[in-house]
Amino acid sequence: MTVLYFLDLLGTAAFAASGALAGVQRRMDLLGVVVLGLVTAVGGGTVRDVLLGSIPPFCFKDENYLYLSIIIALLVFYFHHSLDFLRRPLLYFDALGLGTFLVIGTGKALAYDAGFLVAVMMGVTTATAGGVIRDVLSDQVPFILQKEIYATACIIGGILYYILYRAGLSEPLTAVIAALVVVVIRVIAIHRHWSLPVAQID
Amino acid sequence: MTVLYFLDLLGTAAFAASGALAGVQRRMDLLGVVVLGLVTAVGGGTVRDVLLGSIPPFCFKDENYLYLSIIIALLVFYFHHSLDFLRRPLLYFDALGLGTFLVIGTGKALAYDAGFLVAVMMGVTTATAGGVIRDVLSDQVPFILQKEIYATACIIGGILYYILYRAGLSEPLTAVIAALVVVVIRVIAIHRHWSLPVAQID
Amino acid sequence: MTVLYFLDLLGTAAFAASGALAGVQRRMDLLGVVVLGLVTAVGGGTVRDVLLGSIPPFCFKDENYLYLSIIIALLVFYFHHSLDFLRRPLLYFDALGLGTFLVIGTGKALAYDAGFLVAVMMGVTTATAGGVIRDVLSDQVPFILQKEIYATACIIGGILYYILYRAGLSEPLTAVIAALVVVVIRVIAIHRHWSLPVAQID
Repeated sequence: MTVLYFLDLLGTAAFAASGALAGVQRRMDLLGVVVLGLVTAVGGGTVRDVLLGSIPPFCFKDENYLYLSIIIALLVFYFHHSLDFLRRPLLYFDALGLGTFLVIGTGKALAYDAGFLVAVMMGVTTATAGGVIRDVLSDQVPFILQKEIYATACIIGGILYYILYRAGLSEPLTAVIAALVVVVIRVIAIHRHWSLPVAQID
Repeated sequence: MTVLYFLDLLGTAAFAASGALAGVQRRMDLLGVVVLGLVTAVGGGTVRDVLLGSIPPFCFKDENYLYLSIIIALLVFYFHHSLDFLRRPLLYFDALGLGTFLVIGTGKALAYDAGFLVAVMMGVTTATAGGVIRDVLSDQVPFILQKEIYATACIIGGILYYILYRAGLSEPLTAVIAALVVVVIRVIAIHRHWSLPVAQID
Repeated sequence: MTVLYFLDLLGTAAFAASGALAGVQRRMDLLGVVVLGLVTAVGGGTVRDVLLGSIPPFCFKDENYLYLSIIIALLVFYFHHSLDFLRRPLLYFDALGLGTFLVIGTGKALAYDAGFLVAVMMGVTTATAGGVIRDVLSDQVPFILQKEIYATACIIGGILYYILYRAGLSEPLTAVIAALVVVVIRVIAIHRHWSLPVAQID
């Protein structure tokens, strides 16, 4: 499916940029920035493939994901001052990546005969585990554990994907609907600063 | 073996509660608390299965572990104020989980033809890697690397398991004895605040 | 290849010592020091084997790596005061390990039909991922993300390995040349305090 592949590469580029930016902000050297860009972009799908047993992982079979991530990270490293105007659009590309990664992960898990929870979890893992690794390597509590409706959008999309898939909808249509829902929730969340409840301790 | 499965679920619940509590204490949102509960409960067995090549991991084949962990984490999130009376019993359930996870891990490694060290390490990994991931995600130095005879109890239990197993004892008996030893050491350690020596630096 | 195996064990010992020392400096207990020594020594090769699908990983098939790492970690724990005179030589053994691990990782990836980028990445992963895990477990931003030409030496060696390999050079010769280049760059970097550029933020 060419459109999905295109969206996948676009999401990969957006995730690589966010990882590389985190490295620049932590004053890492060139290599650190490239490594953070890479793991953010392909880490989620790699964890998914290891758990599903789809080895070697997707980015070992198609090195385009790796080349793209490295090039984006290099651009961020050398030109991040001139790329400030991209900060806002990047949030939207990131949302697009979130939706795309979710449907790819959930779809792949179902193709591997996963049950409901595992299918949703593999979608969420594909979309968020790269960011978790980025934050762990930057010595921070992972973003998704503390802020905003980020993974929640993925969970909702994953559940929807599962329902539509079981209802017999065609796979492309299922993917488009689920991905759109993730993107829309995420974009609204960006605008409204939505967040989940936090436990009360006193 | 029904008793082992029951103990396994009990241990899973105790580990999920400890992970979720760590999330509540770090003021994570609902999702963060659930993720921490999940990885603490099933992370160790998942790492073991990836390394042994038993893919997909146990909790992908039997989603009960996942449902149970999520439910426990939700209960901890919403009712942790009213659950204070459980804090002490939880330590004992946790000890029970430790022993159970150890014998499951060591036994599974031996079934996969592991040697002595690998068998012990897979038992210890099953029992402690979930807690390590919990601490890494909470941006802390892992508990087992610094405090108390926690993993040590597992190591002793794993060595004992290996010896009894090689001596030809039946598997259920081997498992019961090794698990009991872990639980007893752990419970005594809780009461006496035992700890391992720390290297002297000056 | 006996020489490569010998160098591999020497590198494993050096990496185990560096991991154990990190544990001593963080005032970890005996077990923490052993765990840090182990993961630093065998973590990189284990991650590589999981990703390439060579399961169980190398150190599960040949437990010598594990025994050696544990013994070295115990020695560091109990005698680190008397081992001060080893601090300087250790840096060179570490450099030797870096080169050896790199050529083993790149060679194994190529034997698994990896493409150019994956082959280089698997070499670098073998040589550096253990140190990354050590730093994450010690709650630090990984060394290789911030300081000195460490992984860079590996990248150059990996690229060279790939070129020589594709040019049809015999494997032993390819390995020796690539490893030597890594060791030489690393040793010069130690002496000259070379480092990579850091992105300018203002």
